[in-house]
Amino acid sequence: MHFTSEQRLDDGVREREFTLGEIPGVLWTPASASPAEPVPLILLGHPGGLRKMYPRLAGRARHSAADGFAAATIELPGSGERPLWTAVEDARADLRRAIKAGEPVGDEIIDALVLPLVEKAVPEWQAALDALLALPEIGGRVGYSGGVISIGTRLAVVEPRISAAVLFAGSFVPRAMFDEARQVTVPLHVLLQWDDEGNDRQAALDLFDAFGSEEKTLHANLGGHTGVPEYAGEAAARFFTRHLK
Amino acid sequence: MHFTSEQRLDDGVREREFTLGEIPGVLWTPASASPAEPVPLILLGHPGGLRKMYPRLAGRARHSAADGFAAATIELPGSGERPLWTAVEDARADLRRAIKAGEPVGDEIIDALVLPLVEKAVPEWQAALDALLALPEIGGRVGYSGGVISIGTRLAVVEPRISAAVLFAGSFVPRAMFDEARQVTVPLHVLLQWDDEGNDRQAALDLFDAFGSEEKTLHANLGGHTGVPEYAGEAAARFFTRHLK
Repeated sequence: MHFTSEQRLDDGVREREFTLGEIPGVLWTPASASPAEPVPLILLGHPGGLRKMYPRLAGRARHSAADGFAAATIELPGSGERPLWTAVEDARADLRRAIKAGEPVGDEIIDALVLPLVEKAVPEWQAALDALLALPEIGGRVGYSGGVISIGTRLAVVEPRISAAVLFAGSFVPRAMFDEARQVTVPLHVLLQWDDEGNDRQAALDLFDAFGSEEKTLHANLGGHTGVPEYAGEAAARFFTRHLK
Repeated sequence: MHFTSEQRLDDGVREREFTLGEIPGVLWTPASASPAEPVPLILLGHPGGLRKMYPRLAGRARHSAADGFAAATIELPGSGERPLWTAVEDARADLRRAIKAGEPVGDEIIDALVLPLVEKAVPEWQAALDALLALPEIGGRVGYSGGVISIGTRLAVVEPRISAAVLFAGSFVPRAMFDEARQVTVPLHVLLQWDDEGNDRQAALDLFDAFGSEEKTLHANLGGHTGVPEYAGEAAARFFTRHLK
């Protein structure tokens, strides 16, 4: 992990860009974080494209920092400045074609789009976690927050350092993930935008039903994909404070 | 409205039992409530049987009082110490029979059970509201919190003094109520216990979908009918603080 830039935001949050091998990422730590007072960490998931997603990610990170958490994200394989991934690009093109034609999005498109992403991204998130937890100012529990919901689900299954997860329903879910969902046992807080255009509400409800966790909560709010109301973000923050501190 | 008893609870909350005509009820006001500082009111809905429900209702009322709200409830028609209502008793017996036999609960049973209750209970809640708002220590906005969800829905449609509602999914919903739900416009916070035995989860989701409110939130939590987790109660309390203060 190499830090490539550093700045202080106006609220005192320390923002550092880094690369992990060829993967770019960003780490935000609250002003208070130090080797003497390490802070727990939230991994910020997203649908890919760090530059485009930066304003929303930084906003979530600054809220997390205000609650006493470090937050970090990495670029997804095939997105942003990372090398184009032809197989996933082809699946994306198939998806757009199906949606434009008003056709149902078939399982084979969803599988081709999401499963390779999960396979490749999850070990990258784990490598990032290794590097982040080696920093002296970060310590304690780890949460995952965001989409892609299949990445968050797999990570919650295979990575014992994840103690709790806030998952954003809003991406297509391969059938295979429903079985994986049953193996999730950490506390879950699932956000569902009720009118998310291009998202399958029933699949999100079915996935919520499938999760094996003893504590799981679904917060559904009116509005589209990016319209998560402020109070829903605050509820998710309280969930992390309950489980990571 | 005649007060029939009064006591101070250990947290300073003033608890008064009253009768409104032949309807028994209970009013809880925070220690701070006075004609100089009137407090907003939350009507506490329940499935009937004030004595049996008292511990849970008083618990909810004391939480509301701690947040600066008065809370009040009245007995439902045909429940508790009120005269037996043969028609509704017959429908309840039919319902129990159907459930015991493992049969689907037909629309005619649900209609016979719930619609007369809504017809009779809603004007009683409105009369109680008249009397409660005439008290000098109560003033400001009014919320409705609880079940029966069809009563809360009708009240939200016909009673303009209701500014926001927390509705507990967990009772059978007549088909006619889905049309009424579309007429609801106040902010809604719907609580759904995901594994509520004897409750139709899909009907609850359909009703949530039908509500016409621009702000509506569904909080689904794991567990049965009476297993609403403490953090879900706190989230509902924050909803009222946002909308009634």
